[in-house]
Amino acid sequence: MANIIDPWGSELAEDYEKIMKDFGLERFDPKHFPNANRLMRRGVVFAGRDLKRISDAIRNKKPFYVLTGIMPTAERVHLGTKMVVEQMKYFQEKGAKAYILVADLEAAATRGVSLEAARKMALEFHIPAYIALGLDPKKTIFYFQSDNKQVLHLAYEFAKKITLNEFKAIYGIADPGRIISALTQVADVLYPQLEQRMPGIIPVGIDQDPHIRLARDIVARVKDKNFIPVSSIYHKFTPSLDGEMKMSKSRPESMIELPEDTKSTTRKLKAAKTGGRDTIEEQKKLGGIPENCMLFEMDKQHLVESDKELNSIYHACKSGNLMCGNHKNNSCALMDNFMENLVLGMEKARKNIDKLKFVEFR
Amino acid sequence: MANIIDPWGSELAEDYEKIMKDFGLERFDPKHFPNANRLMRRGVVFAGRDLKRISDAIRNKKPFYVLTGIMPTAERVHLGTKMVVEQMKYFQEKGAKAYILVADLEAAATRGVSLEAARKMALEFHIPAYIALGLDPKKTIFYFQSDNKQVLHLAYEFAKKITLNEFKAIYGIADPGRIISALTQVADVLYPQLEQRMPGIIPVGIDQDPHIRLARDIVARVKDKNFIPVSSIYHKFTPSLDGEMKMSKSRPESMIELPEDTKSTTRKLKAAKTGGRDTIEEQKKLGGIPENCMLFEMDKQHLVESDKELNSIYHACKSGNLMCGNHKNNSCALMDNFMENLVLGMEKARKNIDKLKFVEFR
Repeated sequence: MANIIDPWGSELAEDYEKIMKDFGLERFDPKHFPNANRLMRRGVVFAGRDLKRISDAIRNKKPFYVLTGIMPTAERVHLGTKMVVEQMKYFQEKGAKAYILVADLEAAATRGVSLEAARKMALEFHIPAYIALGLDPKKTIFYFQSDNKQVLHLAYEFAKKITLNEFKAIYGIADPGRIISALTQVADVLYPQLEQRMPGIIPVGIDQDPHIRLARDIVARVKDKNFIPVSSIYHKFTPSLDGEMKMSKSRPESMIELPEDTKSTTRKLKAAKTGGRDTIEEQKKLGGIPENCMLFEMDKQHLVESDKELNSIYHACKSGNLMCGNHKNNSCALMDNFMENLVLGMEKARKNIDKLKFVEFR
Repeated sequence: MANIIDPWGSELAEDYEKIMKDFGLERFDPKHFPNANRLMRRGVVFAGRDLKRISDAIRNKKPFYVLTGIMPTAERVHLGTKMVVEQMKYFQEKGAKAYILVADLEAAATRGVSLEAARKMALEFHIPAYIALGLDPKKTIFYFQSDNKQVLHLAYEFAKKITLNEFKAIYGIADPGRIISALTQVADVLYPQLEQRMPGIIPVGIDQDPHIRLARDIVARVKDKNFIPVSSIYHKFTPSLDGEMKMSKSRPESMIELPEDTKSTTRKLKAAKTGGRDTIEEQKKLGGIPENCMLFEMDKQHLVESDKELNSIYHACKSGNLMCGNHKNNSCALMDNFMENLVLGMEKARKNIDKLKFVEFR
């Protein structure tokens, strides 16, 4: 694997090294996680906090949980969400109790989406998308933030445990809205432990790390509650198709939404930045540079499941046997296939939406 | 009445004038309120905000509400609480929908009283005390903060409407605990308007004014909600028996608790500061100074219902016909009577506690 892991290191590797150092994160090592998934094996999942607690729970078949939230403000899911769901799926298969909360309160407060509209959107779009992306609907526990009084009670209680300066030290900024929303997120993160104290793992993008730090600080403050500090696991961003660090709504042509019409994804992928040379002749002679190619990054992160296949794409490009046009055609076909399955999966999930397990609140 | 109102002005009158000016309060004028109660007639209720909204609602028989909260941290009620309940009773009799919320979340977060213990204490002690002090149990709507998701949702929403600096401008200080608790109080204050937009009046001591200001600021911020700015009405503190401004737990001998053993109240009242002269002869000659007498203040604020009787006590003292010893005996007897009725009233209320109207939450 050594010759595979290295070339896959993205051009952003140095940034991630710096982030790990600055934030005090552990390096993620797939060898501690049985049947590591695509993202883990390929270094897309790159860091974590307290990962041993989780690998130990998996090895010893002890209870633990994995949790994420849905923000139902628009019918849109990103590739980042796809990575989170794939991590959820991994841990769920390894025995974690899986929780999905719908952050309808947050959606209402920050985007003016009514609680009713947020609920409808989550049921008709987001939850089906999460299921289509791999979550096991039969084994996942769902709740709406606005229904969960225990979460709101915890947030209220936690507020008394931190000072404004501590909050500022974590978030850089503090205002009432951010404070109440961060505290509610911490309460969500710890909620599964009300029933049973157990390790929990939260898959997040690095931008969500402040919530993890706050949650861990608060656990240390409410010692009498005996919460177990939550673990976290971080994935890299999917770079935008134009080669910038992160996909962004401000450059819609260089991001992929889920689901998205395949005419549109084909147009976007065909316009993506590649590692091709100026002429075909030159590329045949020198080979392409997959390290600079956003299609290869898409293949690696999302489209090509088999390491062997990805490896052969890498070497075909490198050796001048795979031209960018063919690579684009291949990636577009894989994307078509992925989108088709996603849409079908969402339709199926939508039909079975009333079979989901929602937490029942008195 | 002119010769009655004036002498009743406490020695603290100037402080209250300053408070009114500093806080921008309206002077309370009992002539706008039909059958003004003892506290209103005697200048103990001295100021308010937006009082015309309430006097208009009374005159025009339009819907309005009166609201207060119970903080169930200890089995203790103060004379300040008694004044709040008497104001509640007044407005309830004038047609207001009366709401009492039990701040169990606040009790849990600030004093570590569990929600269960807070609930028990409120039902066994505070609510019976409020009823014994004059609240009509059949017409009062109760809820526990921790049950009321709508209040918690409002607090969450309001948090996004104010900045940290605005919060600091009102409270002088801001930390996550204070912020969440103040926002929850504002949500409590506005909660009755979720069912119907209507004026509301909140009887408070002057120390609670920041919450009123925050509530009014937030109403102005969420214009699309069409909340009606809440009105407030302020009463003076009951001075402590040693003549300091405010009764305080740090000087237990100069405060009266409700209920309190009458042996103890008698001891305390007999040791109270009076407006007596150095010798009986001198007092017979010069008369006492009821303006400096804490017993007279007790009579005025709490013990003597009839203005005529209070007036005659005043003049008997002033003219040298009422000596402090006799005055003390009279006040002690009135206090005995009050405490006896309070205890009986609480026992009766406790027996009927399951007939109260609690808001039912889904």
